Order: sequence, then structure tokens, then C-alpha cells
Amino acid sequence: MRASFLATETTVRNDSRGVPYLSLKLVDRTGSVDARMWGKLPEEFLNETPAQAYVEVEGHTHEYRGTLQIKLDRLRLLRPEDVSEEDYLPTTELDRRALAAELEHAGQELQNEHLRNLFETMVSDEEFWNAFCEAPAAKSMHHARVGGLLEHAVNCLRIARELADLYPVDRDLLIFGSIFHDVGKVHELSWDKGAFAYTTEGRLLGHVVLGERLVSSYIATLPGFPEDLRLRLSHVLISHQGETEYGSPERPKTIEALLVHLIDNLDARTAMYVETTTNVSPGGWSHHENPLGRALYVPEDS
Amino acid sequence: MRASFLATETTVRNDSRGVPYLSLKLVDRTGSVDARMWGKLPEEFLNETPAQAYVEVEGHTHEYRGTLQIKLDRLRLLRPEDVSEEDYLPTTELDRRALAAELEHAGQELQNEHLRNLFETMVSDEEFWNAFCEAPAAKSMHHARVGGLLEHAVNCLRIARELADLYPVDRDLLIFGSIFHDVGKVHELSWDKGAFAYTTEGRLLGHVVLGERLVSSYIATLPGFPEDLRLRLSHVLISHQGETEYGSPERPKTIEALLVHLIDNLDARTAMYVETTTNVSPGGWSHHENPLGRALYVPEDS
Amino acid sequence: MRASFLATETTVRNDSRGVPYLSLKLVDRTGSVDARMWGKLPEEFLNETPAQAYVEVEGHTHEYRGTLQIKLDRLRLLRPEDVSEEDYLPTTELDRRALAAELEHAGQELQNEHLRNLFETMVSDEEFWNAFCEAPAAKSMHHARVGGLLEHAVNCLRIARELADLYPVDRDLLIFGSIFHDVGKVHELSWDKGAFAYTTEGRLLGHVVLGERLVSSYIATLPGFPEDLRLRLSHVLISHQGETEYGSPERPKTIEALLVHLIDNLDARTAMYVETTTNVSPGGWSHHENPLGRALYVPEDS
Amino acid sequence: MRASFLATETTVRNDSRGVPYLSLKLVDRTGSVDARMWGKLPEEFLNETPAQAYVEVEGHTHEYRGTLQIKLDRLRLLRPEDVSEEDYLPTTELDRRALAAELEHAGQELQNEHLRNLFETMVSDEEFWNAFCEAPAAKSMHHARVGGLLEHAVNCLRIARELADLYPVDRDLLIFGSIFHDVGKVHELSWDKGAFAYTTEGRLLGHVVLGERLVSSYIATLPGFPEDLRLRLSHVLISHQGETEYGSPERPKTIEALLVHLIDNLDARTAMYVETTTNVSPGGWSHHENPLGRALYVPEDS
Amino acid sequence: MRASFLATETTVRNDSRGVPYLSLKLVDRTGSVDARMWGKLPEEFLNETPAQAYVEVEGHTHEYRGTLQIKLDRLRLLRPEDVSEEDYLPTTELDRRALAAELEHAGQELQNEHLRNLFETMVSDEEFWNAFCEAPAAKSMHHARVGGLLEHAVNCLRIARELADLYPVDRDLLIFGSIFHDVGKVHELSWDKGAFAYTTEGRLLGHVVLGERLVSSYIATLPGFPEDLRLRLSHVLISHQGETEYGSPERPKTIEALLVHLIDNLDARTAMYVETTTNVSPGGWSHHENPLGRALYVPEDS
Amino acid sequence: MRASFLATETTVRNDSRGVPYLSLKLVDRTGSVDARMWGKLPEEFLNETPAQAYVEVEGHTHEYRGTLQIKLDRLRLLRPEDVSEEDYLPTTELDRRALAAELEHAGQELQNEHLRNLFETMVSDEEFWNAFCEAPAAKSMHHARVGGLLEHAVNCLRIARELADLYPVDRDLLIFGSIFHDVGKVHELSWDKGAFAYTTEGRLLGHVVLGERLVSSYIATLPGFPEDLRLRLSHVLISHQGETEYGSPERPKTIEALLVHLIDNLDARTAMYVETTTNVSPGGWSHHENPLGRALYVPEDS
Repeated sequence: MRASFLATETTVRNDSRGVPYLSLKLVDRTGSVDARMWGKLPEEFLNETPAQAYVEVEGHTHEYRGTLQIKLDRLRLLRPEDVSEEDYLPTTELDRRALAAELEHAGQELQNEHLRNLFETMVSDEEFWNAFCEAPAAKSMHHARVGGLLEHAVNCLRIARELADLYPVDRDLLIFGSIFHDVGKVHELSWDKGAFAYTTEGRLLGHVVLGERLVSSYIATLPGFPEDLRLRLSHVLISHQGETEYGSPERPKTIEALLVHLIDNLDARTAMYVETTTNVSPGGWSHHENPLGRALYVPEDS
Repeated sequence: MRASFLATETTVRNDSRGVPYLSLKLVDRTGSVDARMWGKLPEEFLNETPAQAYVEVEGHTHEYRGTLQIKLDRLRLLRPEDVSEEDYLPTTELDRRALAAELEHAGQELQNEHLRNLFETMVSDEEFWNAFCEAPAAKSMHHARVGGLLEHAVNCLRIARELADLYPVDRDLLIFGSIFHDVGKVHELSWDKGAFAYTTEGRLLGHVVLGERLVSSYIATLPGFPEDLRLRLSHVLISHQGETEYGSPERPKTIEALLVHLIDNLDARTAMYVETTTNVSPGGWSHHENPLGRALYVPEDS
Repeated sequence: MRASFLATETTVRNDSRGVPYLSLKLVDRTGSVDARMWGKLPEEFLNETPAQAYVEVEGHTHEYRGTLQIKLDRLRLLRPEDVSEEDYLPTTELDRRALAAELEHAGQELQNEHLRNLFETMVSDEEFWNAFCEAPAAKSMHHARVGGLLEHAVNCLRIARELADLYPVDRDLLIFGSIFHDVGKVHELSWDKGAFAYTTEGRLLGHVVLGERLVSSYIATLPGFPEDLRLRLSHVLISHQGETEYGSPERPKTIEALLVHLIDNLDARTAMYVETTTNVSPGGWSHHENPLGRALYVPEDS
Repeated sequence: MRASFLATETTVRNDSRGVPYLSLKLVDRTGSVDARMWGKLPEEFLNETPAQAYVEVEGHTHEYRGTLQIKLDRLRLLRPEDVSEEDYLPTTELDRRALAAELEHAGQELQNEHLRNLFETMVSDEEFWNAFCEAPAAKSMHHARVGGLLEHAVNCLRIARELADLYPVDRDLLIFGSIFHDVGKVHELSWDKGAFAYTTEGRLLGHVVLGERLVSSYIATLPGFPEDLRLRLSHVLISHQGETEYGSPERPKTIEALLVHLIDNLDARTAMYVETTTNVSPGGWSHHENPLGRALYVPEDS
Repeated sequence: MRASFLATETTVRNDSRGVPYLSLKLVDRTGSVDARMWGKLPEEFLNETPAQAYVEVEGHTHEYRGTLQIKLDRLRLLRPEDVSEEDYLPTTELDRRALAAELEHAGQELQNEHLRNLFETMVSDEEFWNAFCEAPAAKSMHHARVGGLLEHAVNCLRIARELADLYPVDRDLLIFGSIFHDVGKVHELSWDKGAFAYTTEGRLLGHVVLGERLVSSYIATLPGFPEDLRLRLSHVLISHQGETEYGSPERPKTIEALLVHLIDNLDARTAMYVETTTNVSPGGWSHHENPLGRALYVPEDS
Repeated sequence: MRASFLATETTVRNDSRGVPYLSLKLVDRTGSVDARMWGKLPEEFLNETPAQAYVEVEGHTHEYRGTLQIKLDRLRLLRPEDVSEEDYLPTTELDRRALAAELEHAGQELQNEHLRNLFETMVSDEEFWNAFCEAPAAKSMHHARVGGLLEHAVNCLRIARELADLYPVDRDLLIFGSIFHDVGKVHELSWDKGAFAYTTEGRLLGHVVLGERLVSSYIATLPGFPEDLRLRLSHVLISHQGETEYGSPERPKTIEALLVHLIDNLDARTAMYVETTTNVSPGGWSHHENPLGRALYVPEDS
């Protein structure tokens, strides 16, 4: 194996025989993996270690206490000016174009003409739609990757479509809300400087308010959009966190708002499990420190 | 309209003109509805009112402040010995036989032979299976009706089937868990004395422990059932409440346990919305006192 | 004493000698007081009692266990069609015109021309400004009276003015925010049907979002309003509840937002004390059931 | 059975046949019991019922749904001037003189001369000591009876004596603290007006502060009392509630303070169980509403 | 002083004169103590330090800021293959044989023949009984040492014996529950690999469920064991954590369950104090980071 | 720039080019600032770094990511015996004499002679008054500097004076309480050993109890001080934390107690904002770790 990564969380430790080794986390578009290096350590890492650096490594993967790791043979620092930051930003492995098409198709099939027009208006705003298809769904909790918001929206859409057959809901509102409940992330987060970060606007207003404001601004361009539909849609958007302590100024009070919250929660929490256990081998346990706040198990034969 | 009901929550109130009227809640197999009666009130109700009584009424439905009500013209007490209690116990309106068949079919399609055998063993225990198909899913929170546990299990199964395609799970374990996570309710609750109640066993051990114990007792009859599958299944059963404060001694730590909890929660909370707003008219609000702890809205045109 | 009131919370009780009496709460524009009536009780009240009725009473005030009460000699039901509901709606005793003038004056003195223009635009919208000067500050927690929002805004303004000298703040933003943090109440509540109530819009979006949206709509009419000032003002509005569990999607992160929250909280909680102890005599204790959630004491000689 | 009681919580209800009956709670020195009366109800109770009245009754006890009750044949109101209020105040059934002697003996056996002198000084203050031996341990939570504080102190002493052998503690401080941790109740509560009530001082300062202040005032009369012993004793007194949310300004930080808290908690909670289930028959369940906040079970054969 | 230890938490720090020294924690069977070493530091520790290593040291104890420490003169790494891991695992200093005999004797004295038989059956299962006498009571919270579960069980037994005289309880059930409430720890924890750790079974099911299941499996071998006694015993076992948030699916609802919980809590919390302050000198304070979550005080003359 | 500081939180890090640098926090009387040093690092800091050391530095300030920093050119260790510890203890920059005079003046203007006498008695106790004017208001939360308690008291006084005109309060009690609510800090904290620390008395009793005890001891020297005024004043002192979980054994139940709590809270929280953002440049954000528990924003043009 020979490849380049962004090296983070680098520290020097000693093994049980007292021999020093380098411990680091290697990040690239596909995710991250823990790595270790024994033998002659690179001089730059000897005294103390950089918080973050671009590196080229050679080595091979193996399993350690139930987690996949890379054992490095060689490691070389790259100069920041020699790398393209975006090559080291975690990015969805799915086909973003296909995911976007799935959403667009769902928008075209909405029966309610007002929601269909609203959907079309938003998708036609190229700058917005590109941002939506590029944004991460969160800074670190789940789907923290380029295209992550799109992945999350598609998953929520798929679940919503099934639930619309099970419960007495306004199908179009449920589908619209499932796709766009997190739309405020487009303004809450930035992803263009080699890392995912909160914007000042995002920290001061939050994605819940920013999302409702964004959708309202598109509605304002659509004459004849029914006031009560706007109210129900705004309610879906501002209540999707489910509880006030998670940042929704009101809790869900319509069935569509309730379901959008439950679908969002279901996909987000399941993604936390999947992403936390990516490198855990069968029969192994993850660390305690992850968004679900407990060690997670990957059974032997699942 | 002329029919007989179990009358509960009966009180005498005065209207805004100062005229006294009888306010009561009428319950039968199909659910419950509020009713009021003006004019000559039955003598038995004048001083104080019985907590609960079987009655025959005549009247007609109308809407009051966004909620369906019955205005009574006549009301007559029935003697307990003249009624069959079970006729007044809320009961699912769905075809229980068809629902049970859907579960049985899902059991037959399990690929894992151990889970398929376990499923078959449980379904073949006629006393158990009849109880499972008859039990309410709760005393009052959601699906509190004869056949309610069955309805809840079928809904969870349907959702689980879709999610098994979205996430990397052990499909069979997810489906088994979605159907049987609440199996302990069969022993936690009783429904044979004209009302839903907790058993002493249910109050002392709870449906979480009782369910795991019940499934374990069937597994004990199946030689060769893999120990690690039993462990993973027990974990799904005991963790399905999601958090320790809701009665799960451990939180979900496998993806199947996490999803069973999220599916259970999704169906239970949606049912709370639907059941709370049954008699609320479009544009109206429910009372605050309901399992979701907030007034719920039924939009004008949903 | 002879006057008419809205009678609420009416019940018949027996005194320590076993003699029945009528217990009720009398409400008018000036507030509410407990009353009792012995002797021949009005027939309408004998069996059961109306939730709410307009009455004419004769009687005299006295003190009972440290609380002011009225002992009634006569009581007569009024017909709803003979009363003007607004005469029985609690209403500020202060001069609303003078309070409004104080706010308007504060607006004219803002140094920041953008905030001054925004203020003037809002005050010039007669329908809005009349509603602001008429609205209660809450349904029941504090300043629940016609003109209550105005009273609360003036108090907050006065405190803000002093604090602007103590701390390094943007004085104009602090003053603007102190006056208008609760502006969303104008749409969250209704007060035109003989009672204070939540609107459907108020329950679905809440006064925090409605207030930010309202001010944003005025800003949209002001070309050249600086984007960063709008952001800081929106932050003040959406964060003024102080904590997410009280309905603010973000907590205060600027000193002006923090102070507006602290001023709002200070005036609201002090009003709760004052309003709860209105009829408590020196040396007496209020009931436990009040917005502060504890019995409150009025010292002998304070 | 023929006896007089204080009747409380009196209401008229109808039984399952629709027949009205009187439901009430009868209190005397020995505790309380539920009672019911069918047939010709006393006129004073027909329309509405007095909150509280002294009555003479005839009837017999029986069991109803697992709880002991009295079925009344006759009931007669007593005039307040014909009863001695203290005869109807719940009172310990134990020999208060013997309990006090047990405490006094423990005081004499203290090895630490300062604590022994302090103990003797307090017991020698006749007014204080009489109050201590008469006070209830709480208004309603546990040991709410004349002599209840004494009972609680003796129980805590007995437990403390055993624990002093198990753990490395300052035995004398532990014993002193176990006896006097709740001494502030003597000023927090009053019990001389036919009922247990909070004093104004009790509501404003609480028994935690009042107790520390009381003991400190006795220490102030003892020259040479070591400052560090006073500090450790004050810490035991102010921290005995165990957590700040239960009213202790600091949590226990010495082993004696920790043990006094744990002993207090153990005896108080066990008393809540015992007092709540007094009238529950074997195999029966108590109501949910009790200081432990859950229905309690009395097994068949315990 | 010259001895060998397991060295953990090793770091190099500088003293107030800027001189570097080695700071480490030395663990052996008897517990742990902080140590420091100045002068020529061992080379292996210079750059970075091993998480954990077996060492041989020479030095002498002294007091530093109220805590006992060891000042090392010499330190030498031992090779893992030259040590027996179990020599460095904290182990009770009490006579395990005597403690076990005390429990066995208590079992023989049970009056209830079913509980006595159950006790004898469990003790006769040599593998189980050896494990029970060897297991730690927790991974780190309290009694985290070989034989710790046994110590805890004996303490709880001794307290239970006294309380059985104070309160109206089923003495045998209380004693059985006090001894075996934590029996599930035998399967929840492992202690055979040089450290205390959670098993996979322990993490997925928890000691509460594992304990109830274990006792139930012994009961299953005893024909004629009364069903209601089994229910009451199971309730004691599953409710002993006291509150659902601490992992008990139901809270204690019988007096025996309540007392077992209170006794367990009392001994566990007192042990936390004792173990946290082991090396704290009179007049000194422990660190904040300990299971009780606050700095603990050891008085001057206690 | 050339000056001496107390250097804390010193670590060696590598920059993005992999070059090692020294990161440290420099503290003196005026506060603290972050600093960094590249180039030849002092030998004492190379392997590991001292927790705390007195240093002399040369360098210049610049802005880094919105926060002011110092870039060091030279750094030299000072020997502890060559410095005066108090020169490096953060100290108010205001004129302590003037602040004290403002308080004394407020005391002289009290109308209530008992409070005025009490005030004079306290101010006349030179040792106490010097301590009050020197003490920090907290160990680290807010006003953690010599003279900080005085600053906080003056701010609270100023706010109280304004509020006394807005609300129906006992002005003198409000003013006395606003000045002295935190008086117990004088005994809870020590500031004479080169750092702010808790005393043993402070940890065992807390400033709430110590403050009430201190004021009570002065009252005891004033014959004729009214008992009820003492009660109301004690209540203000012990309830000023507002909620039991913050260490007040009772919550505020009089308007003066409520206002003192609200004023204290307002000044403390505003100080947290101001102190946290001292070195943050316009448009920048503070760290998350601060007493308000969230990143704080300093707007561009405020």
C-alpha cells in the first residue's frame, strides 16, 4: 500500500516492551483509519507532533484488537503547497449525480402543484442546488462528508415513501420535508477550506432557523402559494429536531412534522453506528467516544 | 344513533348560560368519543356520578370546537349482568387473522434456520400465539386495544423490511426483533376482566425482562441454537426501550438492536398522534393531556 | 361594594361547621380576587357550577389567612349578551399612551440610523403598533393583561438604559432588542374574544420565530440595511429565551443577546412575584401554584 | 367498632350499580384508614363535602381490593369545640420516654468529651428537648406523627452503631450526627394547632440551616470546643440531604457526613414503604401517589 | 523500600525549578500509590512513556500536599515474560476463605428451606462459587479487586442482619438478596488477563439481567420452588440498582427489594470514600476525579 | 515588549510546516494572554514542560485567528525566590479605594437604622473590610482577581439602585443584600499564596452558609436588631444562588431575595462574557471552554 493522506491526532507512544512508535490517524476522501509506525521515526515527529499534516506513506493493513489498522514502513511529509486540500476531505463514495436525480424525480412526482413548483424553483437555482448536493450533513456527527447531506436526504426520502403508505399523512408534505428538513446546513456549514466548519451565521442562527428562512424566501417568489401550506411547511422545518433542547423552538404537532423528525433521527442514528464501526472487525468493539456515547459491537457473523 | 357503551369520566357541568348538563366519555370496541346531555338528566347522575357504567344511549353526532361529539337525547343505565364486558373493550378494527398470517409468512421466509425454527416453535404454541394476537400493545399509551400488539408488530415488520434494504444489517434478526420486541406484554398485561391492567408479574419484572425470559425459554427447547445468536437476540429484546430511563438495562449496541428500538419508537409515537386526534376535526387542536404531552394539530386540508 | 365581574373557578364547599358556601374567583380589568358567599346560594350554582359566568355582586372585602377576599351578600347572573367582554379582560392600569410615547422617544434617540429607521418603520405601521401596544405579554405567566407587552417592553428599556452604562455594549442594539425581543407575541397570542389565547400560528411556530420573521420583513423594506447588523439583531431575537429548552434555537453568544435575555428574565420573574402576591397581606404566604413554583412571602413590614 | 376521628378527603361517589356512597379518610392518633358509607347519607355531606371535620362513627372493617377499609353504619358530626385537636393528630405508638432514654444513654456513652458535653447541654435544655421528643420528622413524607422525629433519630442511632464497627469512622461524630441531623425540624415545623405545618422561619431558611444554627448556638456556650470539630459537625449537619438539589448547600465530603446521609436516607425511604402499605393486605398493591412515587407491593406470604 | 509493580499513567514533568522528573502510579496486589523520580531518568521513559509496564523500584515513602507518595531512587523495566500478571492485580487483603465461610454459614441458617436449598445448590457448584469468591465487585468504581465481590457481599450481609431486626421484612429473602444481588458480575466481568475488563456478554446484557438469569437457572433445578418466591427474588435482583437510569428495568416495589438496594448503595458509596482517600494524609483532600465526583476530606484527627 | 509573567499551560507543538514551537499562557496582574515562540527553544522546555514557572520575555503582539497573541523572541526562567508572587496574581485595574468608598457611601445612606448600624459595624471591622476589598469574587468563574468581589459588589449595588425605583421593594434590604450576598467568599477562598484557592472551611460549608453565619455574628453584637429583619436578611443571603442545585438550601421567596439573585446572576454572567472575550478580535470567536459553555462572538463593529 502506498498513498497520501492528511495525518491527524499524531502522537508518539511506547509499546509494552518500552519501544517508541508513532500513532496517527490517516484521512482521505474515503474516510479515516488508524496507523502506527515503529523503527526509525521521521525527525519532525520526534520531539512533538504536528496537529495536522499531509503525508505520503507506505505500509500494509492488519487487525489489532478487533480494529483495522495500517502498519507503516515509510512516511514522508508533503508540503501544503503540493497538495489539493479537497483530495483529503472525506467525500461520499456514492454517485452524487444519481442521488440528485433521485431527489429531482421525487420532486417532479409531487401531486401538490405548489410544493412541486417550490421544489422546481429550488432545484433550478443552480448555486443553491450545487451547494445542497455538495454539503456535508454535519460537521462531525453523521454523514460528515462532501455529499453527505444529499445521501441523508435520499435515505430520508426512501423511508418517507414507505411510511406514506402506512400512515394517514399528506404524502407530498412528508416527502418535501424529508428531503429538505436539513436544508439550512447549506448555510450553517462551510466545506471549502480543507475542513468542515461552522459559519458565523450558522453559529448565531443555526440550521433550523436558516432552513426555514431559506425555504420561505423561495416561497415569497411564488404568487398564490397557500398561506396555510406555508405554515405547515415552516412547522415541519422548525420542529424537525423533535425537542426544544435539541434546538427546535417548537416540538412537532402535526403528523408530517412528527414523521420527518422520526425519519431524520432514524437515519442519523443508524449512520452514527455504521460510521463508528467502519474499521471494527467482527467480534470487536468500537471506542466509547462516538456520537452515540457508548461502545458499539460488531457481531462475529453479521 | 342508538347504541350501548361503557360510560366513563362522567360529570355534571353547567354551560355558559348556567344550565347543567351531563358530560361523559363513551367507550366501545371501536374506541371512544365525548358526549353531552342536556334537559332532564337521569336521576342516578344528578348528585354525583359513577366512575364507570354500562349505558344505552340515543343521540346524534356534531362538531364542537373542532372535536367530534355526541349530543344525547336519551340515556339508560344497563345492569352489569346484562352486558358482555368484552363488547366494550376497545378492539382493533383490522382483520386479526390476516395480520397474524402476515407475521407467520414473514417467519417462514427467514433464511436463518435457527430463527425460523424458533419462530415456528413460538407460533405453534397455540396458547402463546393466541395471547400474542389478542394482547393490547400497552395499557393506555398506544395501540391500547385487543389486537393492538399484533397491529404494532405488523407495522414494525413492514418498516423493518424496507430498512433491511437500506442498511447493512442481519435481515433475519432485524425482522425477528421487530415482530417480537414487545412479546413480554403478553405477560405484563391482562385484558380478560373488562379492562386493560398490569399483572403483578408485569409490575415486578416488566415486559422487557419478561420478553427476554419468554424467548429464552423457547430457545432452551431448541438444541443447537447458537450461543452467540441467542446473545444478540437477547440484546435486541432487553435494549429495545433505547435508554435506561425507559426501562432497558442496556442501551442498543448492535445495529439490529438500534434499528428495532428506532422502528418501535417511530410506530409508537405515530400511533400516539393518530389515536389522540381521532375525533379532532380539520383545523382543530387536541387536548394537551395525551401521551405526546402537547396539543396536536389536524390541518384544514390534510 | 357593588360591581360586576367574570366569575371563574366556582365551587360549592362546606366550612368547618359543615355549612355550605360558594367559593369563586372574580375577574375584571383590574385583576382578580377570591370571593365567598354564605347563606342562600343562587340556585344555578347549587348542583354544579358553571366554569365561567358574568355576575353582578354586592359584598365587602376582608382578610382571610393573610389573603384579601370578598364576602358576598348578593350575587346575580348576567346574560352574556348584556356584557362587553373586553370590560372583563385584565388590562394594564398604566397610561398606555404615555408608555408608548416613552418607547417612541427611545426609538428617536437611537444613534444608529439603520436601527432608527427600522424602529420608525415599525412604529409607523399603525396596525402593528396598535397591536403591540394592546397585546398581553403572555397568556398567563406574567403581564397577562391588555397592554402587558407594552409594560414589559418599557421596563426592559429602562433597565437596558442603565446597563448600557455599566458594560461595553452596542447601546442601540441593546435598546432595540430590549424593546422588541417579545414582538412575536403580537402574532402568537390573540386577545379579542374575551380571553387570552394562542393562535394556530403561535402554537406551530412560536413567538421566537414569529418575532424574528416580523422584524426581518420590515428590514426587507429598508435598502442598505447592513447584513451583519441584521444578523446580530436576528441573533438577539431568536436567542432571548436564553436556553434551548425554553425555545431558543441558539443560546445568546453576543453580549447584547446575553443582556437582552437577562433583562427579559429579570423583569418577567419579578412580575411573577408581584402579580402572585397582589392580594396577599403582610406576613402572609401565597399558594404554591404560581409561575415561580413555590409559595411566596410578603413580609410584615415591607 | 365505634370511635371518633378527623374525617378528611370526603367525597360522594356512585358504586358500579349507580348507588351513591360517601368516601372518606378517617384520621386519629394511630394513623388513617379509608371508609365508605352507603344508605342514608348525613345531610351535611349530600351537596358537597367539608374538607375536614370531626366525626363519630360506627361500622366494621373489611378488605377491599387488597386494602383494609371501614364500612360505616352511622356517622355524626362533632362540633370543633367538643373535641381536643391533639387527640386526632397522628402520634407514635412507641413509648416516647423509652426512646428518649435510649438517645440520652447514647449521649452519655460518647467518648469525646466535647461532643458529650454538647449532647448533655442540649438535653438539659428542657424546652428544646421536649420539642425534639414531640416533633414530627416531616410534614407528610415519613414519620409525620408526634414523636416521629424521635423515632427516626433512634432508628438512625441503631444503624449508626452497627456501621461504626464496619467502617473506619469517628464513632462519636457519626452517632451524634445520626441522632441530630434533622434537629432543625424542631423550628421548621409546628404541630400545636391540630395539624403539622411549616413555620415562616422554616420556609425561609429550611431545617438544614436552622439545624446547623441551633447546634452552633449550643456550641457557643461551651468554651474550649475545638474549632475543627465544630467545622466537621457543621459539615455533617448541612450536607445530610446528600445532594444540593435536595437542599444541602454542600455534598458530604467526610465519611461521617456521607454515612449520616446514607443512614437518614435508608430509614426515611424504608419508613415511606412501611407507612404507605399499612393498610394494604397481602397480595395487594398501594396507590401510585405516595412519597416513593410508585405502586408498592405487599407479597402474599411475607 | 524495594519491590516490583505495574507502572501506569507514566509521564515526565518538570518541577517548579524547571527540573524534569518522572511521575507514575505503582500498582500491585495491595492497591496503588503515586511515585516520582528525579535524577537520571531511565532512557525508555525519556521521549515518551509506555502506557503500562512492569518495573522494579527502590525508594522511600513521604507525604506531599497531604497525599502519601513514593520517591524513587532506582527504577528498572521488567520483561512481561518474567512476571506473573496476577501478582500485580489488586487483591483483597482480607482472608477470602473466612469471608466465604461467613456467607456459607449465613446460608445454612436460612429458615426458608427453598432459599436454603437454592443457596446450597449455588455454593455446591464449585466453578461458580470459586468465581464468586474471586470476582471483583466492579471494574473500577468500588471493590475493584480480586475478592472484592466477596467483601461487598459480606458487608451487605452484616448490614442486612441488623436491619432485619429494625424493619418488618422477610429476613431470609433480605439476607439472600444482600449476598447475591451482584451475582451477575461473575459473568459481566473478567479478571484473568492481568486486568479487570467487561465481557462481551456483560456489555450486551449487563449484570442485572445476567444475575437474575443465573439464579433462575439454579431455581430451575429445584423442583417445588414456589413460583411467588421466585418472582419476589427475581424482583430483588433486577431492581437492586434502585432507579431505571442506573440500569434496573423496574424500581424496588417490595420492602426487601428496597432494602437490598439501599444496603448495596450504602456499602458501595462508603467504599468509594475509603478507597479514594487511602493515601490521603490527615487534613488533606483527595482529587476531584473519583467515583463520588467531588474532592473528599480526611480530617486532622479522625 | 519586555516583561515578566507567570507562564502556565506550556507545551511544545509543531506548526503546519512541521516546525516545533513553544505554546504558553502568560499571566500577570492585568490578566492573561496566549504566546508562542519559534526558533531556539529554551532547553528547560524541550523534553517536557513545567506546569507553571516565572519567566521574563521579549516579543511583540499580533493577531492570530481573531485572537490577540504574543510572539516571543526571548524567554528566560526566573527563580521563584527572585519574584513576588502577588505581582503575578490577576488584580482589578479599577481604583479599589474609590470602589470601597462608593459602597461605604451607600451604607451611610441606608434609611433603616438597623441595617445602617450593621453596615457600619461590618465596615468598621478593619480586618474584615480589608479582606472584603481584596478578595476575588470566585476562584475562576468570574471576577477571579484581587478586588474582584469589590467590583462585583459595586456593580450589583448600581443595578439594585435602579431597580429599587422600578419595583415595590424594601430599598434598604435590596441594597444591603446586593452588596453583601457573596460576603462568604471572604472565608471560602484564599488569595495569599500566589494563587486563588478554596479553603477547607470553604469546601466543607460553602460561601452561602459562611456568609449568613458571618452577617449573623455581626447582628449578634447589635442589641435591638429586629428578629424579623434578621430572618428576611438571612433569607436573602442563603437563597441568592437562586436554585437548590446551585447551592442555595431554599429558593428566593421574597421580592428582595429574588432581585438580589437576579442581579447577581446578571452581573456574573455578563462578566463571564467580557472576561472570556478579552483577547478576541472583532469578528472572532472565543473557545468553547469557558464558564458560559459555548463559543462567544465579538461582532465586527461593536
